[in-house]
Amino acid sequence: MMRRIILVRHGVSEWNLLNLFTGWVDVDLSEQGVLEAKEAGRKLKEAGIELDMAFTSVLKRAIRTCHIILEETDQLWIPEVKSWRLNERHYGDLQGLNKQQTAEKYGEEQVHKWRRSYNTLPPLMDPNNPLSPANDRRYANLQKRVIPMGENLETTLERVIPFWEDQIAPAILDRKTVLVAAHGNSLRALIKYFEEIPDEEIMALEIPTGQPLVYELQDDLTIIRKYYL
Amino acid sequence: MMRRIILVRHGVSEWNLLNLFTGWVDVDLSEQGVLEAKEAGRKLKEAGIELDMAFTSVLKRAIRTCHIILEETDQLWIPEVKSWRLNERHYGDLQGLNKQQTAEKYGEEQVHKWRRSYNTLPPLMDPNNPLSPANDRRYANLQKRVIPMGENLETTLERVIPFWEDQIAPAILDRKTVLVAAHGNSLRALIKYFEEIPDEEIMALEIPTGQPLVYELQDDLTIIRKYYL
Repeated sequence: MMRRIILVRHGVSEWNLLNLFTGWVDVDLSEQGVLEAKEAGRKLKEAGIELDMAFTSVLKRAIRTCHIILEETDQLWIPEVKSWRLNERHYGDLQGLNKQQTAEKYGEEQVHKWRRSYNTLPPLMDPNNPLSPANDRRYANLQKRVIPMGENLETTLERVIPFWEDQIAPAILDRKTVLVAAHGNSLRALIKYFEEIPDEEIMALEIPTGQPLVYELQDDLTIIRKYYL
Repeated sequence: MMRRIILVRHGVSEWNLLNLFTGWVDVDLSEQGVLEAKEAGRKLKEAGIELDMAFTSVLKRAIRTCHIILEETDQLWIPEVKSWRLNERHYGDLQGLNKQQTAEKYGEEQVHKWRRSYNTLPPLMDPNNPLSPANDRRYANLQKRVIPMGENLETTLERVIPFWEDQIAPAILDRKTVLVAAHGNSLRALIKYFEEIPDEEIMALEIPTGQPLVYELQDDLTIIRKYYL
């Protein structure tokens, strides 16, 4: 029996439509995002893939994507684990800003760097900002000093990989076929780790939304092949 | 801080509308059932109840009720545990039959007994029946000999209470406010246990659909008060 993990990036959110930096802000899927999730579910169903377990973030655009896929494939009953470690990259003080306006204010080059550099941090959020995740009870399990106020892909990866090691990889080793419904940058972190993509190349990797990406893995979790459904 | 559990019975399913015995058959909510779940969510939101954890069955009419409530209350991120132990009572060979036709065939009195007696079993399903849960991978964790082929409330209670003892009660002792989105008879089993309702009285207890039932509990899990939202 083959070991498999299926990654799905959530579809268009309400803030994607407004061209705003989102990060940890808990915005909902747009109608188009709902349709993308349904389409992802249809593809999984057509491929006849039986899922054993689902992992997602604590942000509703990923959770709803997960639920819609499970509904479409008639597998709502499988166990589901949600973790902040699969959240989108925290975009610091850029969250809520319009990408165009930010470019006008800080310059295209700076914004490009914030978006595309592996290890440049965005302007950090003030911990006293009322929008700080430190005020959100879903992060009450974290000490305030470790709640990110802004992340790059490097720091995102540092908090994603422990979840891979402790939760997802053991499920795959247990021969479970696993769905991960998450975000552009938490999935980039996983893919960088699976494929050993160098720091300077990973930000150029674009993961299409709503397209189930299947990895078939060997017993030692190295990749046999990968393909989009 | 008060200990609380909130019980919600799922709303009208597609088979309720057709007046069919449902049991473990995994039929979906009707449109009305979706609205009932939304209304339940609105009531919880209005009451300002912050949930910490949700429990539901492995049947989609309960799972979707749970998800809709969590969406409406903006708490989709809380942990959720699904278990066959919260399933509806298995209705044996009556599953899929029309209640009216069954009464015509077996007589009103017999059907009343199957529906309202605490410990009368329905006609059991043949384990070779293709609709047997023994053929459903969601019950693969159970040995075939323990998968029910028909239940009364007594046997339903016997498999519900271990889940209360091992999963729900510890969460409440841990001061979590807990949602249980389940079925008429799995909830009857819990309520019988909480309130020590005698065998001969419990079947007369009607739990309205989509009405959040709140129990406030003492540290020893005895009831302080109960009320519908």
